Amino acid sequence: MILTVTLNAALDVTYHVPTLVPGGTHRAEPSGARAGGKGVNVARVLHALGHDTLVTGFAGGDTGSAIRADLAAAGIQEALVEPSAPARRTVTIVSTKDDSATAFNEPGPRLSIEDWMWFTDRYHELASRAEVVVLSGSLPPGLPDHVYAQLLGATRTPAILDTSGPPLLEGVAARPRVVKPNADELAATGVADPVVAARRLRERGAGAVVASRGADGLLAVTGHGSWRAAAPEPLRGNPTGAGDACVAALAAGLATGSPWPAQLANAVALSAAAVACPLAGDVDLDIYRSLVPLVSVEDLDADADR
Amino acid sequence: MILTVTLNAALDVTYHVPTLVPGGTHRAEPSGARAGGKGVNVARVLHALGHDTLVTGFAGGDTGSAIRADLAAAGIQEALVEPSAPARRTVTIVSTKDDSATAFNEPGPRLSIEDWMWFTDRYHELASRAEVVVLSGSLPPGLPDHVYAQLLGATRTPAILDTSGPPLLEGVAARPRVVKPNADELAATGVADPVVAARRLRERGAGAVVASRGADGLLAVTGHGSWRAAAPEPLRGNPTGAGDACVAALAAGLATGSPWPAQLANAVALSAAAVACPLAGDVDLDIYRSLVPLVSVEDLDADADR
Repeated sequence: MILTVTLNAALDVTYHVPTLVPGGTHRAEPSGARAGGKGVNVARVLHALGHDTLVTGFAGGDTGSAIRADLAAAGIQEALVEPSAPARRTVTIVSTKDDSATAFNEPGPRLSIEDWMWFTDRYHELASRAEVVVLSGSLPPGLPDHVYAQLLGATRTPAILDTSGPPLLEGVAARPRVVKPNADELAATGVADPVVAARRLRERGAGAVVASRGADGLLAVTGHGSWRAAAPEPLRGNPTGAGDACVAALAAGLATGSPWPAQLANAVALSAAAVACPLAGDVDLDIYRSLVPLVSVEDLDADADR
Repeated sequence: MILTVTLNAALDVTYHVPTLVPGGTHRAEPSGARAGGKGVNVARVLHALGHDTLVTGFAGGDTGSAIRADLAAAGIQEALVEPSAPARRTVTIVSTKDDSATAFNEPGPRLSIEDWMWFTDRYHELASRAEVVVLSGSLPPGLPDHVYAQLLGATRTPAILDTSGPPLLEGVAARPRVVKPNADELAATGVADPVVAARRLRERGAGAVVASRGADGLLAVTGHGSWRAAAPEPLRGNPTGAGDACVAALAAGLATGSPWPAQLANAVALSAAAVACPLAGDVDLDIYRSLVPLVSVEDLDADADR
């Protein structure tokens, strides 16, 4: 079982408008609310691929009930803790004219110490049974930056960390097997060259660094080599779920122990299959399967070290 | 008692962002959800002025429960019917940099014939006890354009109609005591000159037409004369609740039988008192009281007819 942790799960609401006009009044068609947050999206992709997956984290209040109901309807197993404060909503406005998405993300619930104790008890039990743990996304307000470091330190199960800012930098020190920064998060480490920045994250404790760089594909710096992987051509569409699909591929690869070049080809193809879908967490499996053999994986150490 | 009817009541959610960037991702601070819809806003203003008021209309589902809870917390009496389909939400993004508001309004619930029968039974009973009935706002999807006409025809209680498009034009034929179009709604009748357009609405059946024209104040064409009323200087702020505050003043005036020039001075001052508040339905009573004696009311028939 792959356990995905979403400390700040959300009820994602999407509205479609012809064009977003700042200052205007729009008749907005809601296209249903669904369970979201990065770890939930990762679980949704893993579930679509046929992997045994389990969602945990926090989901309280009416929004939490709606999150749980949506996961149940999708057949995704969850063991979410229910704090008294309601889960956040996110509101995304999709402009149908140019397919652009404008997102408004609530910060999330204020948790109590009791909520946290309930969660850590459950987390310890679930992580010990998991093949891989995925820790994804932002933190609800009030949780300290080293929360992912503590969760990583509490389990020997291989873990992937996908977050940003101080929680990423603090988490890296707790030696996650893989971290997946995007280009901005990599640049935020203060090092301009992405390969050098990825090496620094490894020096700080990450087992491997897989950086997603949008249309430029993936950069991987690992203990077994460095690679750059890219799709034959950039896909147009909705980039919001691409990073989560990449993490899903890495989690599946970690669970099955496949070699890095194969993992990276899967991750690039699955990211592209997510870009083709309008909602984060969805992937087009036909696109995924057809793209895997077309992904180019370049060995960055080929001339330098061998 | 003044009865306000809100067929498409809403749970209004407001988010504050520094600047709205189309295509961007925003950390959005919610400032609480509250009961909304034009008739609810009118009731809120009447309640603030000390009038006995009652809210009816539809409010189902979780959003309906939240609407009822918010009205109870504000001390506003309600007799809302609860259909199975949930009440709509509206999402307003306030950009704190320039105070601009960008609104996304869901269309509303699909009502059943049974819902409608429950409502009309309740409406007949409540309208017969009311001094004034206020019918405000848009219709949920599926309700026909002559719905306000039918509600107006079913009661002899003096009524104010504040809506737009076909429901306004069809409603006018059912002889409401007052209609309150805004400048756009008046122009949509196809007549460019606002005084002529207002006269046409009277010919179609409206007892009086009070048109709100933003910073240009109010234009009133009634059976007792025509007036233009304006504040000494235009107020800057949030215009969304100004029309509802104007309707509240007209409803109060109709209930007490005050003469038109006094009603219009109150309506202009109360609209300005709403513009000064960030949320629709709120009014600054100090601004209201200080502005009433400063409103200019010009008799448009003074030279022409007398």
